[in-house]
Amino acid sequence: MDPLIMKILVLVAGVLALGFVGYLTVTILRESEGNEKMREISHAIRQGAMAFLRREFITLAVFTVVIFIILAVFIEPKPLVGIAYVCGTVTSALAGWLGMNIATKANARTAQAAIGSWAKGLKIAFSSGAVMGFCVVGLGLLGLSIVAFIWNDSHVWLGFAFGASSVALFLRAGGGIFTKSADVGADLVGKVEKGIPEDDPRNPAVIADNVGDNVGDVAGMGSDLYESYVSAIAASMVLGVLTLGMVKGMYLPLLLSAAGIVASIIGALSVRPKDIVGANFEKQVVRAHATMNTGVYVSNILMIIASFFIIKGFVGELGLFWALISGLIAGFLIGQATEYFTSAQHGPAKKIAKSAESGAAVTIIEGMATGMMSTVIPVILVVIATVLAYIFGGLMGIAIAAMGMLINLGMLLAMDCYGPIADNSAGIAQMAGLGDEVRERCEALDAVGNTTAALGKGFAIASAALASLAWLATYFKVANIEIASLTNVGVIAGVLIGGMLTFIFSALAMRGVGDGSFAIVKEVRRQFREIKGLMEGEAKPDYVACVDIATKMALKSMILPGILVLVVPLILGFTLGPESVAGLLVGALVTGFIMAVMMANAGGAWDNAKKYIESGALGGKGSDAHKAAVIGDTVGDPFKDTAGPSLNILIKLVGKVAVIFGPVFIVLITL
Amino acid sequence: MDPLIMKILVLVAGVLALGFVGYLTVTILRESEGNEKMREISHAIRQGAMAFLRREFITLAVFTVVIFIILAVFIEPKPLVGIAYVCGTVTSALAGWLGMNIATKANARTAQAAIGSWAKGLKIAFSSGAVMGFCVVGLGLLGLSIVAFIWNDSHVWLGFAFGASSVALFLRAGGGIFTKSADVGADLVGKVEKGIPEDDPRNPAVIADNVGDNVGDVAGMGSDLYESYVSAIAASMVLGVLTLGMVKGMYLPLLLSAAGIVASIIGALSVRPKDIVGANFEKQVVRAHATMNTGVYVSNILMIIASFFIIKGFVGELGLFWALISGLIAGFLIGQATEYFTSAQHGPAKKIAKSAESGAAVTIIEGMATGMMSTVIPVILVVIATVLAYIFGGLMGIAIAAMGMLINLGMLLAMDCYGPIADNSAGIAQMAGLGDEVRERCEALDAVGNTTAALGKGFAIASAALASLAWLATYFKVANIEIASLTNVGVIAGVLIGGMLTFIFSALAMRGVGDGSFAIVKEVRRQFREIKGLMEGEAKPDYVACVDIATKMALKSMILPGILVLVVPLILGFTLGPESVAGLLVGALVTGFIMAVMMANAGGAWDNAKKYIESGALGGKGSDAHKAAVIGDTVGDPFKDTAGPSLNILIKLVGKVAVIFGPVFIVLITL
Repeated sequence: MDPLIMKILVLVAGVLALGFVGYLTVTILRESEGNEKMREISHAIRQGAMAFLRREFITLAVFTVVIFIILAVFIEPKPLVGIAYVCGTVTSALAGWLGMNIATKANARTAQAAIGSWAKGLKIAFSSGAVMGFCVVGLGLLGLSIVAFIWNDSHVWLGFAFGASSVALFLRAGGGIFTKSADVGADLVGKVEKGIPEDDPRNPAVIADNVGDNVGDVAGMGSDLYESYVSAIAASMVLGVLTLGMVKGMYLPLLLSAAGIVASIIGALSVRPKDIVGANFEKQVVRAHATMNTGVYVSNILMIIASFFIIKGFVGELGLFWALISGLIAGFLIGQATEYFTSAQHGPAKKIAKSAESGAAVTIIEGMATGMMSTVIPVILVVIATVLAYIFGGLMGIAIAAMGMLINLGMLLAMDCYGPIADNSAGIAQMAGLGDEVRERCEALDAVGNTTAALGKGFAIASAALASLAWLATYFKVANIEIASLTNVGVIAGVLIGGMLTFIFSALAMRGVGDGSFAIVKEVRRQFREIKGLMEGEAKPDYVACVDIATKMALKSMILPGILVLVVPLILGFTLGPESVAGLLVGALVTGFIMAVMMANAGGAWDNAKKYIESGALGGKGSDAHKAAVIGDTVGDPFKDTAGPSLNILIKLVGKVAVIFGPVFIVLITL
Repeated sequence: MDPLIMKILVLVAGVLALGFVGYLTVTILRESEGNEKMREISHAIRQGAMAFLRREFITLAVFTVVIFIILAVFIEPKPLVGIAYVCGTVTSALAGWLGMNIATKANARTAQAAIGSWAKGLKIAFSSGAVMGFCVVGLGLLGLSIVAFIWNDSHVWLGFAFGASSVALFLRAGGGIFTKSADVGADLVGKVEKGIPEDDPRNPAVIADNVGDNVGDVAGMGSDLYESYVSAIAASMVLGVLTLGMVKGMYLPLLLSAAGIVASIIGALSVRPKDIVGANFEKQVVRAHATMNTGVYVSNILMIIASFFIIKGFVGELGLFWALISGLIAGFLIGQATEYFTSAQHGPAKKIAKSAESGAAVTIIEGMATGMMSTVIPVILVVIATVLAYIFGGLMGIAIAAMGMLINLGMLLAMDCYGPIADNSAGIAQMAGLGDEVRERCEALDAVGNTTAALGKGFAIASAALASLAWLATYFKVANIEIASLTNVGVIAGVLIGGMLTFIFSALAMRGVGDGSFAIVKEVRRQFREIKGLMEGEAKPDYVACVDIATKMALKSMILPGILVLVVPLILGFTLGPESVAGLLVGALVTGFIMAVMMANAGGAWDNAKKYIESGALGGKGSDAHKAAVIGDTVGDPFKDTAGPSLNILIKLVGKVAVIFGPVFIVLITL
């Protein structure tokens, strides 16, 4: 095929994604935002979310400038890697901003639509999730391909992915600390000290708490997967150029991604919820899940067919096709395993609920054991996918497998980001007093959202692991490493230090939540003390102050982990050599991947065990078992929403630093 | 030096250790066991401990026969590896039996001695700890050296270490499950349901609980370190033969160990507690600790001098001397770091105690974060020791560094095993009503024991890590692996699966505690129901039945982890090749080492945070903070006493399986 035509096809797919985003945005904004109270709440959440993004982006901008200067001064080709880095940062930040903007505009509209029709509520929430999803794939593909079309140099492409990583550090790791600080801080003063209900608008931290849902699960999740998506494509391109030559190697991954966007759009369009007359809660949940699954199946099948023809046409033989399929299937099965281990319908969460009858300690131990056991299937699936992909397609096969897992990201992310919007809509329905029927509908939407969010977490971790493996392969090529043998003590040292990084990172993230929630508690107490009439509902609290404090604390808590992840690979590379850095990546990968799965699934299972008891089992709300389950859930929150997700960032970011600075290690060593 | 003279020196040192054991035993048994009640309690504990060992050893015997047959049929030189394996099993089991026997005879004697003099109580408890310590080094060195003197074949030596590993699996991993099952089971019915105090003799599980202390911290700790000790020496010999030739390579490690025994005996003899007139609790504790530390310093200094001359004489240059010193110093510093992170005198445990004021969930999170942060120093120290040892002495240097850490094991283990004996003596003093003064003396002894036990755990993990690294080096030599590169996807697969094994192992160990304690609860309830007059103190409970059930359950819970650890390396070796097994060892090592440190230190810190509150801080016993701290401690118990220690076994045992079966992988692959 003519390169010009391929260029056009890729760009068209990217534009198509953004066009689809525009179409979805128009359909969402056409809907009514409901009564004044609903608009007010939604507006406050949006205002808070934007305040969070503003502060994050200011710090990110400073960070970006610093890194840009370092790259522009030290990394060849100068200053192109630096420029590509900035492009990666800007596009990812833009995707996060657009997604958050719409998500916070859709929450009240979802609740309002649910007044008329359950199906319409589902449609709006899903559509606004899709805005995030297609912003990510559209801007990701457009950004990376334009960089690649302008600069025909693989080092530059890698710079773009590094930029995406930086945003993920801020939005995912920082967002994770924010969301739990706000959550815990709001509860500690509101529920415990003042005895006011969970979502009470008098609580100055209530908006920060609601913002947190969007920050963690929309912007954070989006930037995390933006990073994986771009990394997998960039790694495939770099390895592809080495395997298939410049033209085929560069265009094959881009065209596959373009096809993925089309398949995902068709998938998303085939999510057509219908109202079920007289359906109960359970039926609505099952139906909502099935409706969205249709989209996944459609896009998966389309993509399997499309990739068969694309790879057949490009390469002639089908090795890379099988590599792509192995990633795609592994991603799907990991989602299923995640659901089994976390959903309240299955054994593990029920067993944790049962153990809650013996008290909090047993609940914690059982949850930890469950989380640990739940790592087995994801690890085995990633191993099988990696080994098969390597057998079928060599190192490039591994990168293509990572792409396979992420190829329908538009559709999958729509499902993931649907969750927090449904969650917010249920909150708004309650706060605005929309009545039992509407509330139940919104809660049915939310219940599905919990499942898709859990699936999304498992999927995000697995794709981070596979993307990191692809990036490891890229590192070997870029740093010109033929061998990084475990017989080399420097490699072993790297593995151990990489493993240690995971534990420092998790500990600091969890500590960050502690410090952040403490700061929130102080601020909330201050407002109750100083703002007259607040407790009586006569004065308004300063919501933005709480958002601001939580953001500041989150940023502060990220300084040390951020520095560590940037500096440790460099120190190792310059002292023990580039092979030791390979060890570091592997050490961080194995511990980070497994710990992330463990924490996410333990957290999810504790959460659902609590909900299972709250649904009336084992004595229901207020029983001793419930109290124990609440403690489990509270431990699980920073596990699944802060420490676990931040490990995704760790394992990807160390890889980026290694790849970008890899050539420098070699230069210095040969000096 | 003439080999015959060296042979004699080594054997004399081994016999000397056993002679010292005999001397200590006579001095201990000469003491009075106190009044009838004390004798009765002590007798019951001893009976229970022996019942545990009997059942463990029966299963171990079956296991040993099966493994012997496999080794005798498949592993060259046939059947010598099998025979050496049996020797390793028998000597380690014998050391465990002797140590437990004296430990359970010394508990009442310690309490009785404390009536007259605090110093005498300390002396007896320390002496009986030393019995375990010198049984381990004496039998270890004698067994291994006799095997080496008879069969001049390094493969046979490795078989001996494999045997030691099997015993450690049963006594350490199985013992860890036993001790916590009994502990939790006794508490759940006794304290919670029946409302009787902790150490009440009416509770049928009370003896099992006391037995558990000896099982975990005497027999388990002893067999764990027996394994590390023998592994480090055997690895040094194997690598030594390749580096320095048959005679020097074989005798250097043996002579160093012989010198270590002499240094340790002198160290142990220099532990001379003196009564302090009018000293308070705190002073006694500090003094007891200082007294034992004298022994450590004496033996360390002696050993540094001795190893200088031995290595200088053998090798001429001092590379291996520095390797040995780096291991010795790393071991010492890791002990200090462990103390900092777990002791109630320092920040971390106090911070956990403070967090207990915010409830159980915050306590758990803070404890987890503390455990995670506490991994940094041990990992860095092991990395530095390994890198230095390699620079100074190549692969053999790593094995010598592991030896350096373990060279004064006789003295160090005496300190570790002192703890449970002091603990038991305090229990007996309370149960037998020996009065406040005696009880306080015994509790001062116990308080020191808690610190030495925590140090011992950190030390056991670090030495397991270093011994495993030495064993990895041995695997490379035995399996003839020049390169196991991370660019090989099979190696990466191995690393991931090794990491996964750690999490399965931990999960199964913690589940084992759950199942075991449940079985104990059922049995205790049955006895209270069926034995008439038990609650009134008129009838005696069936203590042995509880011990028996806890042992059975512990053995049952070990079937799956035991099979996994034996089978997974074989499957990987036969499918993805011997390099993949190297990946497996590294993956298990990095995750197992770090998780073990995390769990041990989190557990220790929770324990001491609780004790800190119980000492009157933050509201003291019965406060809300105390309740939260108790939950933390209960979560920490299986962390530090079951899952954590069992990871020591995992990382060492996979290495053994790999080394023993390594040659077979190669044969099959070349077929």
